[in-house]
Amino acid sequence: VMGAPVCVGIDPHLDRIPLTILEKARKSYTNQRDIIVETVCGFCMPLLDVLIESGIRVVKPQVAFFEALGPNGLAAYEIVCQQAQELGMLVIADVKRGDIGSTSAAYAAAWLGGTHIHGLRLRPFAVDAVTINPYFGTDGVDPFVKAAAETSRGVFILLKTSNKTSAEFQDLVLAGGEPVYTEVARKIEAWGSASTGERGYSDIGAVVGANTPEIGAILRDILPNTLFLVPGFGAQGAGPDEIRPLFKADGTGAIVNSSRGVIHAYGNDTYTGDWKALVASAAKQFIADVRGALGRPAKAIR
Amino acid sequence: VMGAPVCVGIDPHLDRIPLTILEKARKSYTNQRDIIVETVCGFCMPLLDVLIESGIRVVKPQVAFFEALGPNGLAAYEIVCQQAQELGMLVIADVKRGDIGSTSAAYAAAWLGGTHIHGLRLRPFAVDAVTINPYFGTDGVDPFVKAAAETSRGVFILLKTSNKTSAEFQDLVLAGGEPVYTEVARKIEAWGSASTGERGYSDIGAVVGANTPEIGAILRDILPNTLFLVPGFGAQGAGPDEIRPLFKADGTGAIVNSSRGVIHAYGNDTYTGDWKALVASAAKQFIADVRGALGRPAKAIR
Repeated sequence: VMGAPVCVGIDPHLDRIPLTILEKARKSYTNQRDIIVETVCGFCMPLLDVLIESGIRVVKPQVAFFEALGPNGLAAYEIVCQQAQELGMLVIADVKRGDIGSTSAAYAAAWLGGTHIHGLRLRPFAVDAVTINPYFGTDGVDPFVKAAAETSRGVFILLKTSNKTSAEFQDLVLAGGEPVYTEVARKIEAWGSASTGERGYSDIGAVVGANTPEIGAILRDILPNTLFLVPGFGAQGAGPDEIRPLFKADGTGAIVNSSRGVIHAYGNDTYTGDWKALVASAAKQFIADVRGALGRPAKAIR
Repeated sequence: VMGAPVCVGIDPHLDRIPLTILEKARKSYTNQRDIIVETVCGFCMPLLDVLIESGIRVVKPQVAFFEALGPNGLAAYEIVCQQAQELGMLVIADVKRGDIGSTSAAYAAAWLGGTHIHGLRLRPFAVDAVTINPYFGTDGVDPFVKAAAETSRGVFILLKTSNKTSAEFQDLVLAGGEPVYTEVARKIEAWGSASTGERGYSDIGAVVGANTPEIGAILRDILPNTLFLVPGFGAQGAGPDEIRPLFKADGTGAIVNSSRGVIHAYGNDTYTGDWKALVASAAKQFIADVRGALGRPAKAIR
């Protein structure tokens, strides 16, 4: 991770894209799918320019918002990811896939390894890392771990998520006295143990929400070589104080994500002013907030 | 569920599609993506005809195998689902999505509710039900439950999966002495309690593998009003004896899936005979096996 350890989530909510962009798309297309896809691309492409100019080097496009637009939406997702990579950004595909082994292998081909058969070679989506769901256990995770190793890409496994009800299953206390998330953490350590990158971190990262910093601190201790992708900052409620425990004492080990708080900083679709200027300031403020949190002594917060 | 309580998974493994179909696609297209998509459609479309002629009324297309083909693959997925519905089949979209609430809402729009904004109306994929992952808890499940109720569609939530390592998290024993899967089952009951369909089953079903029948029997008792979608039959190892406990005493309550064992019954891509005939007999045998299992007294197996 170059620069500040931050990542901006590209979650284009249709009801928050400036209406001027929709109106422009309506003049160019008649088919509803084309209009909507053009609107999303018409927002995301200049958004990427604003983000890189504001110092953002990692983006996390959320595939759900593109999948909601049908097959053309996935084409838009591909274009957005390619453009981000061409601008020099790292792209984390937020897809949270996971299934039994043979099916996870197909997902891993889609997102990491590509499809090679009978002289045909389909490249995967243009991404540097992918998020996955661990519910199936090792079988379902292995194809992603292998594909990541073969392609020098990364995987972030859901560990402790940032939503309000994440405790329902993730925090259940086991017979041995420990919660489910510590068991998931131990598996993540095992899955990642075969790979250790240049800075001492494994290819296999974990998603750990910023809104439960006391749990984050425990997981930070269990997983010293695991990079954390940290959602929950900004629109989801966590602030600078909450993110410090997710980093190691040396200020490395985590990358903090903000989505809506940055990309829709101007408000909703009725905003008629300079939305890019407001996104740029939100991105810069986000970087400053995370840098500020890292500048404070870890002990005082922990 | 009309007819036999069976479902065939449409998991087109590229290395098992007869090479004649690929060769034909190569004559029509030069772009690699187009060739691969044409090959998958060239296999799936006649496959659907064979399945319906063999008595199959429910199919479960696995999106991972289409996603692996890129955006065009999702277009192929849409075509396959539409064709299955036009043939009169029920379509279960096997997508296993799940995320925080606002993102799950986008997935629910993609697969169940559609996208409606500023006079634009995007229809969702042509499916009757969807599979989802419960790891996020209620927040992540609610948008699917609501969209299903609004559109009279269904949701199947992962409960106890059919893969070898499903026990790693799903079977962990909690402090109270019960395994994680019973806690997931109780949540599924709560999520489904608002809806009870015409035959006494909720809109909210559960995925319960056939290969752990003793667990299936426990879950059958906990969830009397929940329809089970049962993978693990055939290629994954479970036979007629294993599926009986997933059904209620009256022979209802479950729908058994077989994927590779039916659609690739002829072997692999080098098969040059009449692949459709072998698929037809595998489909008929599958129906007979499930009917046979239901004909036996439940007590003897349980």
